[in-house]
Amino acid sequence: MCSEHPLAVKWQSKIIAMVSLNKRCTFQVGENPADERTLTLSSASNGGYYISLRPFVEPKGSESELPYEWAFAGSPKSLEAKKVDELRDDINFNFDFDTNVHLNAENTHRGVVETHWKKWESGLVEERGQVFPFGPDKQAVSFFELWQPIDATRDEFVHISEKSVDQSAARSVVLALDDDNYRGLVITVGKWTQGILFKKAEHTAKGINFLRACESADGKITTLLKYGVDFDRFPSTFVGQKDAELQGAAGAFWKVVESNL
Amino acid sequence: MCSEHPLAVKWQSKIIAMVSLNKRCTFQVGENPADERTLTLSSASNGGYYISLRPFVEPKGSESELPYEWAFAGSPKSLEAKKVDELRDDINFNFDFDTNVHLNAENTHRGVVETHWKKWESGLVEERGQVFPFGPDKQAVSFFELWQPIDATRDEFVHISEKSVDQSAARSVVLALDDDNYRGLVITVGKWTQGILFKKAEHTAKGINFLRACESADGKITTLLKYGVDFDRFPSTFVGQKDAELQGAAGAFWKVVESNL
Repeated sequence: MCSEHPLAVKWQSKIIAMVSLNKRCTFQVGENPADERTLTLSSASNGGYYISLRPFVEPKGSESELPYEWAFAGSPKSLEAKKVDELRDDINFNFDFDTNVHLNAENTHRGVVETHWKKWESGLVEERGQVFPFGPDKQAVSFFELWQPIDATRDEFVHISEKSVDQSAARSVVLALDDDNYRGLVITVGKWTQGILFKKAEHTAKGINFLRACESADGKITTLLKYGVDFDRFPSTFVGQKDAELQGAAGAFWKVVESNL
Repeated sequence: MCSEHPLAVKWQSKIIAMVSLNKRCTFQVGENPADERTLTLSSASNGGYYISLRPFVEPKGSESELPYEWAFAGSPKSLEAKKVDELRDDINFNFDFDTNVHLNAENTHRGVVETHWKKWESGLVEERGQVFPFGPDKQAVSFFELWQPIDATRDEFVHISEKSVDQSAARSVVLALDDDNYRGLVITVGKWTQGILFKKAEHTAKGINFLRACESADGKITTLLKYGVDFDRFPSTFVGQKDAELQGAAGAFWKVVESNL
């Protein structure tokens, strides 16, 4: 197949209008040097549901209890996107799920985050923005993240190229749960599933659960991330037709809120 | 297969001691923002031969005549490598082939370039260094490049992971040519071939030739980069046993100087 020219896929610039799977290359905050300590994947469904899980590859010291830099997710209603030009998008996020908010973490941002996206000629996508960890009228902190678009229909990290299969034909299925005690979101794009589940009244690491899974070419599902005391409330299968219900343990009912199956 | 944890491949930190194929994610010079306008691949053979071709994806204006940001190559004798620790290497390059030098390009570096490499926890590899484009006693310009290790045995850009096949079993073949009028180097690592050919007395774009090719799973070779008036002096096959000779057009004889076949 011999991939070259990972660019020409023009529709990749429609960041939130269709399925995408992006792997982060680098994260740079304020004046710190660029680095990447996580294996961050951000998924977005056809309908604009999104989730980003950011597990540390080698968690250190106090990171071990909750070995995630951050995680967030949301429905299409939790963002406003504006196309600036063919290569640029502005997206204002107001996450439905934000681990920092759920944990009441000190010195972390609250409310809308304005982000500016630009597709590079090489096909990588930069994201720039500012957060206000000390309050909206206090010092802003700039950030820069760089993303590699990945073919969601493959079970390895294969760069999107003009030879990639049409990503609009990839699976796009979203499950949601919102009951008295829990709320959660599970998004499948192509072969990749990511999920988040918060226990509403538990604002510690015990109230947070994450799932990442990948389906091999032979149909076998491998769980890549399994975090949280309530992990078994995630369903064990992740796809179904719109409005179907999928069940996790302990009476957890997940409703299919988006599906192209 | 479901790739995760692209890191655990410890031998990847031996940057120059065995086959590697690295795709550049970003390039940052001085105070400029990070960007990537090229599809840069750097290959290195088992024996430490190396080549880096940096074609612009969308060349603009005057870039069209020679649509390459830069290219260089060399034998293991043209570098000094020192392992700093498990994650860090220092490499001093004194390229045998350097397009800037061959073109007598103004305000470009001459002589040894000291580079500092560090493997990130995520598996990406940063390279930092300084060049002295205005002369060795003039202003230094810092640069930062970020590299994604790629599985050389695949014909797409697939990230190296702990599930990748052993890269030490990949093909590693180097061809060299040095006659009265031309000198060149062609390096094959796994499925990927890159070559450079200089006409010794022609210090314009007409004296520079580049080749990039990739072999598909079905054995078909696709030429991805084909540049230069003497391109047909490259051979049409790139592998052979040590000391074999491969022929290009117009009496160009390439000698196999390294081969693990």
